[in-house]
Formats: sequence, structure tokens, C-alpha cells
Amino acid sequence: MANEKLVGNMLIAQSGGPTVVINQSLVGAVLEAKKHSAIKKIYGSRHGLKGILEENLCDLGKETNANLELVAGTPSSALGSVRKKPTPEDCVKVFQVLRKYNIRYFFYIGGNDSAETTHIINEEAQKAGYVMKCFHICKTIDNDLRENDHTPGFGSAAKFVAQAFMGDNLDNRALPGVKINVIMGRHAGFLTAAAALARVYPDDGPHLIYLPERPFTLEKFVADVQAVYAKYKRCVVAVSEGISDDQGTAIAAKFIKEVDSHGNVQLSGSGALGDLLAKEIKEKAAISRVRADTFGYLQRSFAGVVSVNDAKEARQAGVAAVKFATGNQFNSGSTAIKRKPGKKYAVTIERTELRNVAKETRHMPDEFITKAGNDVTPAFIAYAKPIVGDLPKIGRLKAVPVTKA
Amino acid sequence: MANEKLVGNMLIAQSGGPTVVINQSLVGAVLEAKKHSAIKKIYGSRHGLKGILEENLCDLGKETNANLELVAGTPSSALGSVRKKPTPEDCVKVFQVLRKYNIRYFFYIGGNDSAETTHIINEEAQKAGYVMKCFHICKTIDNDLRENDHTPGFGSAAKFVAQAFMGDNLDNRALPGVKINVIMGRHAGFLTAAAALARVYPDDGPHLIYLPERPFTLEKFVADVQAVYAKYKRCVVAVSEGISDDQGTAIAAKFIKEVDSHGNVQLSGSGALGDLLAKEIKEKAAISRVRADTFGYLQRSFAGVVSVNDAKEARQAGVAAVKFATGNQFNSGSTAIKRKPGKKYAVTIERTELRNVAKETRHMPDEFITKAGNDVTPAFIAYAKPIVGDLPKIGRLKAVPVTKA
Repeated sequence: MANEKLVGNMLIAQSGGPTVVINQSLVGAVLEAKKHSAIKKIYGSRHGLKGILEENLCDLGKETNANLELVAGTPSSALGSVRKKPTPEDCVKVFQVLRKYNIRYFFYIGGNDSAETTHIINEEAQKAGYVMKCFHICKTIDNDLRENDHTPGFGSAAKFVAQAFMGDNLDNRALPGVKINVIMGRHAGFLTAAAALARVYPDDGPHLIYLPERPFTLEKFVADVQAVYAKYKRCVVAVSEGISDDQGTAIAAKFIKEVDSHGNVQLSGSGALGDLLAKEIKEKAAISRVRADTFGYLQRSFAGVVSVNDAKEARQAGVAAVKFATGNQFNSGSTAIKRKPGKKYAVTIERTELRNVAKETRHMPDEFITKAGNDVTPAFIAYAKPIVGDLPKIGRLKAVPVTKA
Repeated sequence: MANEKLVGNMLIAQSGGPTVVINQSLVGAVLEAKKHSAIKKIYGSRHGLKGILEENLCDLGKETNANLELVAGTPSSALGSVRKKPTPEDCVKVFQVLRKYNIRYFFYIGGNDSAETTHIINEEAQKAGYVMKCFHICKTIDNDLRENDHTPGFGSAAKFVAQAFMGDNLDNRALPGVKINVIMGRHAGFLTAAAALARVYPDDGPHLIYLPERPFTLEKFVADVQAVYAKYKRCVVAVSEGISDDQGTAIAAKFIKEVDSHGNVQLSGSGALGDLLAKEIKEKAAISRVRADTFGYLQRSFAGVVSVNDAKEARQAGVAAVKFATGNQFNSGSTAIKRKPGKKYAVTIERTELRNVAKETRHMPDEFITKAGNDVTPAFIAYAKPIVGDLPKIGRLKAVPVTKA
């Protein structure tokens, strides 16, 4: 790449599961792009790759800054999203469209699949000798992107999970029993682990945390719950939807299969895993009040629960991607959030190769999981706390007992 | 009741499902009680009636005001709650305990069942010629207490539902399909109806709202969803857990029964109603992307989502109950929130007879439900808005289309 500025249009798109801060990245990139004379038109694609394939684009240069700021604070992909693994033909077609619109700056906000797509599009451009900057902007509530200390979207989803558990722990304390909450994250347990941030007092739930990173057995689960229940007369459990047995088979999938053989597919329903676990406790542990909730989509796009740092970093990632792209150093890459060493929490957004983020995902490191495999360590709490930020203040009564009359 | 002050101890307890503002009522009552010299000891019962029966009381006079304020802002019944319909023997026993501890001021925070319990205890006291002030302090997220314009707990739960739908509507807009959310409220549709507050733009969801107050049929439901989907290529639905057929049989119960006859009880699971409705749409409307979530316990005790007016009024209800009790006018009663006439939202807390609130519940009035029975009216929005208060600001891109190249 010569020092000469690459002049042309920009296209940005959003992909995969929405987050509450994904528009911060979009708006960060657009506002930064407006500062660069080399970037002419600023286009957005409606619903990710789908919009490119269908040439369904919008002109983001026509948005006012005030409206962009309003959109930045609004949850869920404002351009629309898509769940689409592009075929090789799709990638060729996408590249053709980008060339047709003289796109010289391409940005794709998403997780590891989006990084992979960006990587393939970049390779198509290179093969054709078409000079185009291709950047991926990191995003995922699962927090499972490699090269990143953590990813935009995770902090706010984790805050939702923590606040939900704060309330639910107190609900369970008021009306004791066993409460099981199923949390998103098929392969990485970070979001489920964030439930631990809800704890204020030593006896607060979640009392048990089950992650996809450790093999799960119903026997151990029942024994764990019984032990907690014996101690506290109640038990709050955080369970990842992705918990699996020692063969790597998801417990939820195992359950569905078992039920399918009885000709009953409804049990693959939205609450199936929680219901299975609740039934086990009722039957095997002989505890009568057992409830399960599945947090579902609420945890990824709930309006009004936002981590301040998460919003800020999502914005910074968008800005950084445009800065990397308009600089002379790199033709492509992905934004990666790195934590600065030192006691005070601070991050930098660095640039990494697309292939470093694409395809494979990251899991909870061993030092974040207790030996027993059913809880997180203080190291995880220290890691997650600044990402999630302030949580509601929780109190309890001293409740000095009255001597019986 | 003579003008002479009734001197003795006070006991307060919390009952039924927790809310995020139920401790405001508790703290309001305790702080007000501290001002009255006629009230000597201020006791709290642990877990409602259970704590009275077991003489498991705590001394709330030993709480600092600072700690009480912290507790006031903390979700879920700080004294613990109970789901217990007292037997006649229980009521006799409860009264005996109250007398033993020289309780002359008794307060019970809860819904219509708690009002009934307070009523029975009051009658026991009168039968025995024991002078005791018995007051019920209104509370329920279901908003189904008679005599009340609305009830403490509803505003904050409704705010949670509205914010959830704000995010979920945008999630559905980003990744279009049919999304069904099942909301609490077995007999009254107020909380489900609050989903309508999420709407900002004319095409925003929820597009359909199903309440227990109108008969529900799967046929009409499928036709409704198809009509919305034809218009918007997406559809967000709010469904009360209590929707029933024209015979008054709950759809969820019908479903469970049907499944029971196949020897399969798991389908009564936490997501059963949502799953049933999603399956109907997939099969009958031939729409592929259909998802269902059941909000579960999150909506009643989520930490950090609080309506300002709800918190304030819950506090006022607690204060008012003690004022009524320490006054000379009434021996018993329930606090009732009345809305003042006029454009500006304002309420007063009045005193009503216990029997007016006990047992029976209130439903959504006809003027709050559209003729088609699948949505709420502007009258409902006007009613609910000030109760719920400010909601997050939501924006969308102008998204000016780019002419195809």
C-alpha cells in the first residue's frame, strides 16, 4: 500500500445476534468516516450480507449526527442483521457488488463468522487486484472472540444477567426453593459466569454455576444442589444453555433425542433444559419448590440495561476500525480489545489479522473456573467487574431476632 | 375507638409474590411508626404468617435509618414472604401470638389474599374484644386489586415488560420472524398490556396483545399473526400466561391436559404455552422463524428497573397505613391508590374497608381493550404511561435508500 490515499466509498454492515451496543460501533465508524476526505459515500447494507447481495443499501451520509447519537444508544442492529453463512458464490457476488459501488472501505460488525466472511471477501478483492480495505469490528455477547480480552456486547448482556440474578436471588430468599436459570452461550460460559457478579452477601446466589467448559452430569448436579440446599434451605443455579456431557454432547440435545424416540418433539421447547433440570431435582432430591426460567432473547437486547464501559468500547472499536483502514499500515484486520496492564481498568483497541479471529472461538480459561467445576473463581470476578460496571445497590435487614415471649 | 391513644407494639409482614418496590412499603411503614410514641416495639415477621405462627420475629426498631433506606431500594420482600392460605385454626393461632406480643398495630403487605387474611385476623381480634388496628398495604404486579387505580409493584414490573419489548421489537426488526413473549398475570391482563408502552414508531411491536379478559382461540391467533406478517414481514406478540378459551379454561391448562393423556407431564414446563403457540404458527402459518420466550420471575424482581412513581407510591402506601392506624378514625382497612382527576398525574392514598379488597380481583376494563380483542386502546396507554414513567429513548436510522447502480 502506497502512502497515496485510497479514495472511494465505504460500506458498513451488521451481522449475527444483536447486542445493546452494536449501534455504538456503527455510529463510531460512521462519525469517524465523516472526518476522512478519502471516504466519499458512506453506505450501510440492510441485513448484513443479504443487503449487499440484493443491493439493498442506504446512505448513512444523510443521517444527522443527532440522529446517529440517538441510534447509538438504541439496542439491536439498526441496519438489520442476518444469520447467513455465505457460499463461495455469495462471496464472489458480494465482491462484485462492492466493486460496482466503488467500495474501497468495507466494515463488518460481528462475531467470528463475520470475521471469516470479511476474510473471504478480502481474499476475493486481492485475487482480483482490487484495492479495498476490509475490516471486521468485534461484537458478541458470548465473549468468545480470540485475541480480545472481551468483546463489545458482552458487558451489557452480563450486566443484564447479573441484575436478573440479583433480583432472582432475593426472590428465592423471600420464597425459598431451588431456582434454575438458563443463560445463553452455547460454547463459552462467560455470560453464565457473569451471574456470579450478582453476589453481595456470602450466602447469595447463584450458589452453583454450570459452564459448557466442564462436563455436566445429572448425578453431580443433583448432589451439588442437595449440598447447597442442606446448608441454606434454598439454592439458585446458573446454567449455560451449552452444558455438555464428557463426550461433548449438549445436555439439551441429549434430552431432545431421548424425547424424540417417544415421538414427542415439543420438549425441544424454549424451556426444555431448565425443565429437565427442575424435574431431576424434584424427583431425585425430593425438594418440592423447584422453578426454572430461561432468559432467552431478553439478555441480548434489553433496552435500558447498558454497561458504560461496554458502550464506550463498542464506540471505540468502530472508530478504531476506520482509523486502521484510513491509515497506511494495514489493508485488512479486526479490532481487538486489549486490557492494559495495571490496577486501573483501561483498554486499547488494537488491530489483529482477520484469520486470528475467524472461525475458532475462545473459551473460559481454567483459572476462571473452580476445581469442582461448578463455580467461578475470584479471578473471573476481578476480570468481569469493570467490564460490567456499576450494579444496583442491594441491602438486607439486620433482622435482630426477637426473643420468644 | 376512644380518642385515647392505643399504646402497644406493632407487627408488619410481607406476603405473596415479591415486587421490586415492596420494601418501600415496609420501610415507609417502619419510618412512620418510629414517629408515633403510641407504637412501642416495631416487629417484623419472617416469611409472613409463617413467621407469626412460628414466633419467628425480628426487631425492626434496631435497624438504622440508613440501612432501612438501602433495603427500601432493594427488590423482593426483605422480611421474606410466604404463599399460605391460612386455615381457620391458623387464624386463631396467629391472633393468639399477636396478643402474646401485645401487638396493637398489625400491617400486612400483599394482594387480595393478604387483605382477606388481615380481614379474618381483625375479626378474631374483635371477637375476643382485643383492640388492635389491622391494616392491609396494597401490593401486586398483577394490578388486580379492587378499589385501586393501580397497585404498588405493577409500575415497575410493567416498566420491565415495556423495556423488554422495546429491545425485543428491535431484535425482531433486525432478524425478522415471529416472536411470542409470555407474560405473568393469570386473571388480569394489565402487565401483558404494558408491552404496548414499548411502541415508539407506528410499525413497532408488540403487534398483537392477548389478554385473559378475552377468549382466545388458536385459529384467530394464527390468522392475526398471518395478517401482521403479511404487512410487516415480522410480528411480535405479547401473550398473558392466563389466556383462556370461551369456557374460561386456560389455554396452558388445556394443553397440559392434552399432553397428560399421552402420559407426558413435562410439557407443563416453564415454556409450554409459548412453545405451543410457536408450534401453531410454524405449522399453520408456514412461517419458519418463530421464537417464544417466557419472561418468568424476572419481571417481578429484576434489580435496577424501577418506576419512580411506583417506588414513591409504594412508600406512601406504607406511610399512609400507619397514619390511618394511629389516627382515631379507623380500626382496620386497606390502603387504596386513587388517581386525582385532572391532566397532571397525581394520586392520593385513601383508606378502604378490608372486605372491599379481599377475595375478588379486578380485570382490565373494556375501554382498555380494542374491539378485536387483540390489542389495547389509547385509553390504556394514557392510563399506564405515568405509572410506568420514563422509558429508554429509542431511535432508528432514516436509512435513505441508495439507487441501484
